[in-house]
Amino acid sequence: MTDPVEQGYFTEESSADVVISRNAGAEDARLKEVMEVIVRHLHAAVKEIEPTQEEWMKAILFLTDTGQMCNDWRQEFILLSDVLGVSMLVDAINNRKPSGASESTVLGPFHVADAPERALGDDICLDQKGEPMLVRGRILDTDGNPVAGAKIDVWQANDEGFYDVQQKGLQPDFNLRGVFRSNERGEYWFKGVKPKFYPIPDDGPVGKMLGALGRHPFRPAHLHYIIEADGFETLVTHIFDPDDPYIHSDAVFGVKESLMATFAPVDDPERMADAGFATPFLEVEHDFVLAQS
Amino acid sequence: MTDPVEQGYFTEESSADVVISRNAGAEDARLKEVMEVIVRHLHAAVKEIEPTQEEWMKAILFLTDTGQMCNDWRQEFILLSDVLGVSMLVDAINNRKPSGASESTVLGPFHVADAPERALGDDICLDQKGEPMLVRGRILDTDGNPVAGAKIDVWQANDEGFYDVQQKGLQPDFNLRGVFRSNERGEYWFKGVKPKFYPIPDDGPVGKMLGALGRHPFRPAHLHYIIEADGFETLVTHIFDPDDPYIHSDAVFGVKESLMATFAPVDDPERMADAGFATPFLEVEHDFVLAQS
Repeated sequence: MTDPVEQGYFTEESSADVVISRNAGAEDARLKEVMEVIVRHLHAAVKEIEPTQEEWMKAILFLTDTGQMCNDWRQEFILLSDVLGVSMLVDAINNRKPSGASESTVLGPFHVADAPERALGDDICLDQKGEPMLVRGRILDTDGNPVAGAKIDVWQANDEGFYDVQQKGLQPDFNLRGVFRSNERGEYWFKGVKPKFYPIPDDGPVGKMLGALGRHPFRPAHLHYIIEADGFETLVTHIFDPDDPYIHSDAVFGVKESLMATFAPVDDPERMADAGFATPFLEVEHDFVLAQS
Repeated sequence: MTDPVEQGYFTEESSADVVISRNAGAEDARLKEVMEVIVRHLHAAVKEIEPTQEEWMKAILFLTDTGQMCNDWRQEFILLSDVLGVSMLVDAINNRKPSGASESTVLGPFHVADAPERALGDDICLDQKGEPMLVRGRILDTDGNPVAGAKIDVWQANDEGFYDVQQKGLQPDFNLRGVFRSNERGEYWFKGVKPKFYPIPDDGPVGKMLGALGRHPFRPAHLHYIIEADGFETLVTHIFDPDDPYIHSDAVFGVKESLMATFAPVDDPERMADAGFATPFLEVEHDFVLAQS
């Protein structure tokens, strides 16, 4: 009996080795390494699962449907990566922070590059819909020193769970978006409205899979931030409302314990007047700690 | 600090557990089990690979392109499964045979259900193109006894590497296909032409991947068989020419050592006359051993 791997012949026992040895001539060493890991885990998973031919075909058709659901504005494979926790894992691997620095989470598909610069205290809600909110906090370095002049790009869903880009014509352009700069004490503050939880698109194969797994498609309410400052790593993250009904079951696993903000109701008339509100509001507070680059 | 898995919060360390615990409510126990294995291996692979965001996006786009290459007659995800050895592995898992029984290999996409029944000795080559071949052997049980009346469904590519269904109008219908029955001594024989190696479709993402891995798209020349007999497991397999240039590098890993036939040239005029050939021919011999069902 010859060595099947050397001969290139298939055996169940050495299946991964037979496949991997075929890539010996790959010029791109990184591709070769990546394919080796993929083939080993793929074959190990198939050996654990022992799929029937019908189950294998179901998997082929699921992947095919997922690809065919994609178009210029819908990326179903990213959704699949999201709901399997892969997007968050890739984010975590690429954004390991030193102790004490704020953690990252996924960027998401709704960032807009050219949101307007606004003055501290401005209201990013342009249509007066929703429960008013004052968002405040500080940008710090890992020693607790203020970071002045940090660029703080924020965006959020409205009180119905939609971003402006999902409701062109229904919301003003650049509604609930703005770019702020921290002051010399590292402080930032702006007005918005309480965001609502929302579903990821669930009318495709990924939504069907979530249903079969007994999972809902919702993301808990959050505010997005990109924070940039000279000498520091850019931080892409969210802050979350700890009382959101979906805070323990984000469909895309974006929630980290350190990203909880406080959402405190304020109805004291003096504080309302101080903050420039005619009605009670929510005070949302969260500090961000940037890692030196 | 709360337990992140219990809370549903993401951490790099427990990423797979967080995702898997979300499927606790799945009603289909098999689906739940399959997803657990997939998530564990997927997260383990990502942790080993540590992809950059760009590499992750390349993978997303590769899967998307693979799905979008599929149509009614092209299944690029099956091709991907084939070239990664997954199709052969699933085949092997579903067709484990007792010691001594012939091994299976992949069915492939070119089987036709209603090929004509033919008499032993008939020529399945209907256009007289190619190097003539006499194919013969016996159908046996695992004790070496002949299996009479076995249904032997054979099909093959022609001398240019094309099946009839790939060359409608250029080849006669049902060219190089036929259904035979073994005689009371378990014997079968028929005439055909020497098949040629051929490439799997390589003008899509899978072909591009093979190229990047330094792999060619060819399958070594083979004859397909489906052998059915009462009381026995159906055998889906090929036989191969051990001298084929691609015998050690089948693009889809279909070759097993036990599936080599002999392809012996015969130019003795008496044996040519006996076999009903006016010219020299190849004698291809292979016995099949069926497993009791």
